[in-house]
Amino acid sequence: MSLPSKQKSNIAREFLRSALAADPENNSIPKILDWLRKQNEAVRVHIRRTGFNQLDQWIFDGKLQNLRHVSGSFFSIDGIRVHTNWGGVSEWEQPIINQPEIGILGIIVRDIGGVLHFLMQAKIEPGNVNNVQLSPTLQATKSNYTLVHKGTKPKYLEYFLDPRKSVLLDQLQSEQGARFLRKRNRNIIIQVEEDIPLYENFVWLTLGQIIRLIGFDNIVNMDTRTVISGIPFGDYSPEIVEFYSGMLSRERESDGSKFLRSCLNNQDALHSFDDILSWLTGMKSQYDLRVEKVPLAGVKSWSISDEEISHKDGKYFKIIPVEVEIENREVKVWNQPLVQPTQEGICGFLVKEINGIIHFLVQAKLECGNHDIIEMAPTVQCLTGNYRHEGVKKPEFLDLFLEAKKEDLIVDTLQSEEGGRFYREQNRNMILKAGDDFPVEVPENFCWLTLNQLKTFLKFNNFLNIQARSLISAVSFT
Amino acid sequence: MSLPSKQKSNIAREFLRSALAADPENNSIPKILDWLRKQNEAVRVHIRRTGFNQLDQWIFDGKLQNLRHVSGSFFSIDGIRVHTNWGGVSEWEQPIINQPEIGILGIIVRDIGGVLHFLMQAKIEPGNVNNVQLSPTLQATKSNYTLVHKGTKPKYLEYFLDPRKSVLLDQLQSEQGARFLRKRNRNIIIQVEEDIPLYENFVWLTLGQIIRLIGFDNIVNMDTRTVISGIPFGDYSPEIVEFYSGMLSRERESDGSKFLRSCLNNQDALHSFDDILSWLTGMKSQYDLRVEKVPLAGVKSWSISDEEISHKDGKYFKIIPVEVEIENREVKVWNQPLVQPTQEGICGFLVKEINGIIHFLVQAKLECGNHDIIEMAPTVQCLTGNYRHEGVKKPEFLDLFLEAKKEDLIVDTLQSEEGGRFYREQNRNMILKAGDDFPVEVPENFCWLTLNQLKTFLKFNNFLNIQARSLISAVSFT
Repeated sequence: MSLPSKQKSNIAREFLRSALAADPENNSIPKILDWLRKQNEAVRVHIRRTGFNQLDQWIFDGKLQNLRHVSGSFFSIDGIRVHTNWGGVSEWEQPIINQPEIGILGIIVRDIGGVLHFLMQAKIEPGNVNNVQLSPTLQATKSNYTLVHKGTKPKYLEYFLDPRKSVLLDQLQSEQGARFLRKRNRNIIIQVEEDIPLYENFVWLTLGQIIRLIGFDNIVNMDTRTVISGIPFGDYSPEIVEFYSGMLSRERESDGSKFLRSCLNNQDALHSFDDILSWLTGMKSQYDLRVEKVPLAGVKSWSISDEEISHKDGKYFKIIPVEVEIENREVKVWNQPLVQPTQEGICGFLVKEINGIIHFLVQAKLECGNHDIIEMAPTVQCLTGNYRHEGVKKPEFLDLFLEAKKEDLIVDTLQSEEGGRFYREQNRNMILKAGDDFPVEVPENFCWLTLNQLKTFLKFNNFLNIQARSLISAVSFT
Repeated sequence: MSLPSKQKSNIAREFLRSALAADPENNSIPKILDWLRKQNEAVRVHIRRTGFNQLDQWIFDGKLQNLRHVSGSFFSIDGIRVHTNWGGVSEWEQPIINQPEIGILGIIVRDIGGVLHFLMQAKIEPGNVNNVQLSPTLQATKSNYTLVHKGTKPKYLEYFLDPRKSVLLDQLQSEQGARFLRKRNRNIIIQVEEDIPLYENFVWLTLGQIIRLIGFDNIVNMDTRTVISGIPFGDYSPEIVEFYSGMLSRERESDGSKFLRSCLNNQDALHSFDDILSWLTGMKSQYDLRVEKVPLAGVKSWSISDEEISHKDGKYFKIIPVEVEIENREVKVWNQPLVQPTQEGICGFLVKEINGIIHFLVQAKLECGNHDIIEMAPTVQCLTGNYRHEGVKKPEFLDLFLEAKKEDLIVDTLQSEEGGRFYREQNRNMILKAGDDFPVEVPENFCWLTLNQLKTFLKFNNFLNIQARSLISAVSFT
């Protein structure tokens, strides 16, 4: 390892300053939304259902019987059989997205007028409910960034390949464990000192602006949300306390300042790190997860036609072959499979003040594609369709969210999943204040963590699932 | 999660006190060695090579063509094909031990005379070079502790199943990545307050005694070493500084006190945690590891006879069917496969004072059975046979260890691998002081960490491989 090029001790404070900065007048939230709307209007995206036989670059592989790109790159749809002692179903089979390469989700930041600004991209993805969402500076698969395919070089790639750039964040984080087989991305933030070109579909935003935009439905894409969630703000220090009191003294009792306290306080948590790690170790030891590949064609309860791969009861999701046509200044046409959800989803964190500090109620959740059996998930993470229509047992605490009063909801938005793989999938993201009578003692697969603790687990990779991270990215201090 | 039953903030200090405690006269190191010798002499272990066809409980499974126990429990020997861009060989096949269940390695501790004592077992394992080694209070597979097999309940199991017991350490840690497919154990230490029975092959030892016994060849087994390595001693605090200066003031300049400083100091490390995590993320993103199952019978370059499964050039290891007869007061006979190494191994850490603090030179190493591509390994970890006889390129820094002067070696012992799986496998464990001229700048797959940083990574699971942990367990502060 090379020696660190420069002192980075104040980075947490710089991130915090960017999160708390006032909006610049020439680039207020309404103006950004307007700019995005124009980006949206300037493009037309047509998605036409087609047949698997019409996909010119995708084949059902005869030997392994999966659905894959002819090049062997991008991703494949594989069949898996899952064995577990977690939950009510001990064995099932399903299709899953297999994309073993680690991709890059990278953001460039730069000090502009004393505040870190983030270089964001208005990016078109075929599956987005709207055409364009705010994405990181760079979204690249390994095949992209190693230029295996000799395709167009993604914009700004060269900055991420430059080892002299200052790396402010660099984490491996998971994607949806029910949909992807152990997929992970490298979440990375680098800082540039010099002027760099600003292409027309890019914009410089403060961290506070990005967080406020996450407060709107389907504006900030999933890849941005996961990178943002991992940003550390440090612990209390004399410096930070001074800084903090200056910024927020008039709003001491707002939700924002309570979340900030939960983020910076590293002493008053209900449980110690050792306790939480022991809880997770216990969960991982108690629950087994065994996943084996099976031929996609034979996956139990699922059928393949030329039109779709679907569950016999229409549950969960479908895999559909589509032709994509994107029309802006030029027209691009290609075809690919997309994953289309057939049920609504809900992801919600219950929060409660304990010892004067906001704690998040975390669930230890097993999903078949998890890299390490159990990840920390939101209090509630489920498909609501099942429970609404069939009268089966509802997940713990779901009713609290379904029946929540508006004034107790700190966050309540619709957020999109990755539009390159998922067709118009959006889930309801909620952060709900628990009532005063909500108990501190919780079932054994739940645990209360402060935001400070969640941020530390984020740093050590693979502890928080993407649904939990998406919610954390929505936490605003203002 | 239940609320924590008691304050555990002083546990790190209690562990440290136990590590630094003077030997009790009635149980000095020579007396313990003598007791172990007697335990050894009281037992006879006969290992007879037999044929796979003679193994009454083990079969070559016709469908998957692996070697497994008829019950489907314990472990199996599977064939795998490995694809990677790490190192000089991009694809190979090999047999590997597949043992998906998470086992328990548990130690009971108790305050005796103001000092934590550890309940250690003189345990017979068929593959040990000597019959008996010091093992944790409890070594149990999940089948053991859930009593699936209705076998004899392991001694002291009930204490580990009692949720009211205070848990002092609880980590998931890996086993050898070249031999086991993603195997992990739960390393756990619990504290009892009450008197508990002491069976004849058990003994109460201080942590300092266990560490001093690791200074002898093949006395402390691998399972003990991994649990011991994870014990946290905390950071400097006014309390600890006072405690420390009282205990060690006369020996300020010894290796022991230098290691203690490296263990407690959390400020003067060469690299920050963020830098180290970024280094690891970079390594994990750069290197691919893809492992697929193949029929054991068809594994390339390996052959199966009734006598053994072996590499065509006699390299690496063999799998041999053996009949085990253990004779003490009663006679037990069974048969099983064991893994026999065919080459010597060496694991060595180079250490160097940087900023006045001892740093360990850690290697980012990919092994095919790793849970997460790359783990932190010792500076040197290899089979020496290859390099001695064939003149191929030696691993980086190996010569420093092969040509080390005695006075620069802080640790130089032979340590056994797990005697339940491995037949008389021992590796040379070395900790070597680097010369003053050894550079601080190192190749990109190496990084300097303090003992304090290594202990933190240990806590978050799966960062340090078992060879690194074995060496860390040997670090003495006295």
